[in-house]
Amino acid sequence: MKQTKVAILGLGTVGCGVARLLLQQSDRIALHAGQTLVLSKALVRDKAKSRDIDLPTDVLCTQLAEITNDPDITTVAELVGGVEPARSMILKLLESGKNIVTANKALLAEHGPELFKRAQELGLSISFEAAVAGGIPIVTNLGQCLSANQVTSLLAILNGTSNYILSQMESQGVSYEQALCEAQRLGYAEADPTMDVDGTDTVQKLAILSQLAFGAQVFWKEIPCQGIDGISAAEINYAKELGYRIKLLAVAQLANNQLELHVSPTLVRIGTPLAEVYEAYNAVNVEGDAVGNVFYHGQGAGQMPTASAVVADLIDSATGRAAITFERLELWSCRDNAVTPCDHTAVKSRYYLRFNVDDSPRVLAQIAGILGNHEISIASVIQHEGPESEHRIVPLVIMTHRTTEGAAEKAIEEINLLPCLQGAGVCMRVLDESGS
Amino acid sequence: MKQTKVAILGLGTVGCGVARLLLQQSDRIALHAGQTLVLSKALVRDKAKSRDIDLPTDVLCTQLAEITNDPDITTVAELVGGVEPARSMILKLLESGKNIVTANKALLAEHGPELFKRAQELGLSISFEAAVAGGIPIVTNLGQCLSANQVTSLLAILNGTSNYILSQMESQGVSYEQALCEAQRLGYAEADPTMDVDGTDTVQKLAILSQLAFGAQVFWKEIPCQGIDGISAAEINYAKELGYRIKLLAVAQLANNQLELHVSPTLVRIGTPLAEVYEAYNAVNVEGDAVGNVFYHGQGAGQMPTASAVVADLIDSATGRAAITFERLELWSCRDNAVTPCDHTAVKSRYYLRFNVDDSPRVLAQIAGILGNHEISIASVIQHEGPESEHRIVPLVIMTHRTTEGAAEKAIEEINLLPCLQGAGVCMRVLDESGS
Repeated sequence: MKQTKVAILGLGTVGCGVARLLLQQSDRIALHAGQTLVLSKALVRDKAKSRDIDLPTDVLCTQLAEITNDPDITTVAELVGGVEPARSMILKLLESGKNIVTANKALLAEHGPELFKRAQELGLSISFEAAVAGGIPIVTNLGQCLSANQVTSLLAILNGTSNYILSQMESQGVSYEQALCEAQRLGYAEADPTMDVDGTDTVQKLAILSQLAFGAQVFWKEIPCQGIDGISAAEINYAKELGYRIKLLAVAQLANNQLELHVSPTLVRIGTPLAEVYEAYNAVNVEGDAVGNVFYHGQGAGQMPTASAVVADLIDSATGRAAITFERLELWSCRDNAVTPCDHTAVKSRYYLRFNVDDSPRVLAQIAGILGNHEISIASVIQHEGPESEHRIVPLVIMTHRTTEGAAEKAIEEINLLPCLQGAGVCMRVLDESGS
Repeated sequence: MKQTKVAILGLGTVGCGVARLLLQQSDRIALHAGQTLVLSKALVRDKAKSRDIDLPTDVLCTQLAEITNDPDITTVAELVGGVEPARSMILKLLESGKNIVTANKALLAEHGPELFKRAQELGLSISFEAAVAGGIPIVTNLGQCLSANQVTSLLAILNGTSNYILSQMESQGVSYEQALCEAQRLGYAEADPTMDVDGTDTVQKLAILSQLAFGAQVFWKEIPCQGIDGISAAEINYAKELGYRIKLLAVAQLANNQLELHVSPTLVRIGTPLAEVYEAYNAVNVEGDAVGNVFYHGQGAGQMPTASAVVADLIDSATGRAAITFERLELWSCRDNAVTPCDHTAVKSRYYLRFNVDDSPRVLAQIAGILGNHEISIASVIQHEGPESEHRIVPLVIMTHRTTEGAAEKAIEEINLLPCLQGAGVCMRVLDESGS
């Protein structure tokens, strides 16, 4: 059978997983690729470092030139992560005629246009199934399987760490800090979890998906983004009392050829599919104008789920499917009628609000009055009776009917100025049953 | 932009949906195909019949030769359904050099080997995303996206009619007959619903999926199959009392390089994803050795979801991806170590049993004794106190621990011979939490 040489950059967790599949499952991979994929080189910083996979000594290398100079290596999987030196290495690999497979969402979100343009100029491909949602093949599903559809809505849970923390807070009744510690102990969260919990990881993935699904050209830093790092146990409990679960949701929805885009902790009704995504799992709900709703659920990270996606891309690259798909993807494309992000103040949603207020007469009237002035109507209120004392502070929870984000922002700003308020109010979106 | 001529056979519900997408969404399709797909011919029996889509008069035709004789038509979508004349028409189209797209699972289950062999000999492709699970792109996901995995388990709800009937029986408390009538009224069930409710439709789809996922060569008629046509409201209620929901489940699971295959009404624990599939929806849970579990949920039938799958295949055919994929698919393939169906009497499962028995002493002892003789241990028993009367018949519901199908069959045969039994016992599989 024909042999094709491939190489990988980086032998971290995912790199070792990819190497293991290539070495141990070579027959199965050959069956699907129509050729044997031979792991010819693996670039590492330190050859002597101990790893959980034994590679032939001539495979390990420390110089990129050993890969770029070998004309028989056709495809290289970049698995070092981060922006540099990954970007420079990919550019050098493209110049030397290599097709690229990458799991690096941060790099694509930051420098995707540059890399994709260069690859297209050179007639090469970049595949990136592993960059978003790990084991869920959402990139191929959007770019190929659902290509007869105009995607109208994309709702997704894309960060396993955040979802694990929220799941633990709800099911175990622990604090955010305790849940984060547990996530770190289990390896779901990095030593520095900032990018996971502040929404950066999610918003970078959303930027990639919304370009695939909508042809939208939007830089990830321009997408409104809020993480779960401010979530308190009180919110988890009030949400549950109202019949909801809080999820870090990535949203991209089309309305009047404009795109609503944001990442934020959102109340999702218990019993609906996105509310039932637990632990470190990811999920994506795609609505297409022909297909209706398609829901995907799977492991969003981890060694072998991510390696599964990388190796599928290596197979696609070897067969030539990747070249065809890459040429037709709408990534950073210029449609005639390009989709543009909408004015986010005009986006409509229901809202969950919590204010800590002095337990004094007229407080509810004042707050309800301000909401009313901004045409925001109230769907439900929770105010529990607390212990009797002189200066009580009580939480007041309000669910609104649909209103614009602009109106909600202004009303909360005004309410926060009331003398009866103790600290700033909490405001979270509520996902409509219909999806919006 | 380059133009490619395509044709469709049949302008029924799905045919009209495909025609509508090709005509009304031609820009979008051209973007993804890199060429305009022009609907050049649509074969019908009666040109004069009124349809819910207006086609240019030169598009409608009544003779297959008008398609086979046009060398510019590259791909034809067969949407007439049924075995003949669909089979003969596809063979003629292949001989005249056309690539095929089909939504016809009955034809593929029956004559797949013949058609696929001929297409491969002629260097042409057959695409069939729409043949299984309609809007869920499970064929591409198994054949391409998850190709780095050995699939180890496939659990699926593949018949919308059956799932709708079971959902209605549970949520509305109606009888099987009432639910079937409602399904027919809403267009979910055919006038003759036999193939849907007796499991034929599901088992044909399972045969196709298990060949894709396991390279198994198994004819659909050899797969043990039971439909929902014998399900009574009592079973729905007892299952619910035990914390389960009854679903018509298609199962293909690998154990020791042998394949467990069957279609049967199965108790699925409430709260797990497959139990939460309602109405006419389909779902597939795929377990791969690298990716873990991936769960897909979407519309399994209907005009536009099916048309979405057909048009995605037309796009794949036009770009050349279909040719690559078809060459590498394991359909009716001959692996060196081909997977073979296992001895179904050795397959292990938990079982739900219901016996209507005389309310007399020693009945439970007799039944429990027979189960014990076959090494079947009892996990739980429900026997409700009924109204007082002379000759009472009471239902006795037993959940067993894991046992083999052979042991369960023999025990039930023996129990059915007991004089205290009123009618034959009911026996259904229970899906293990772990998946098996």
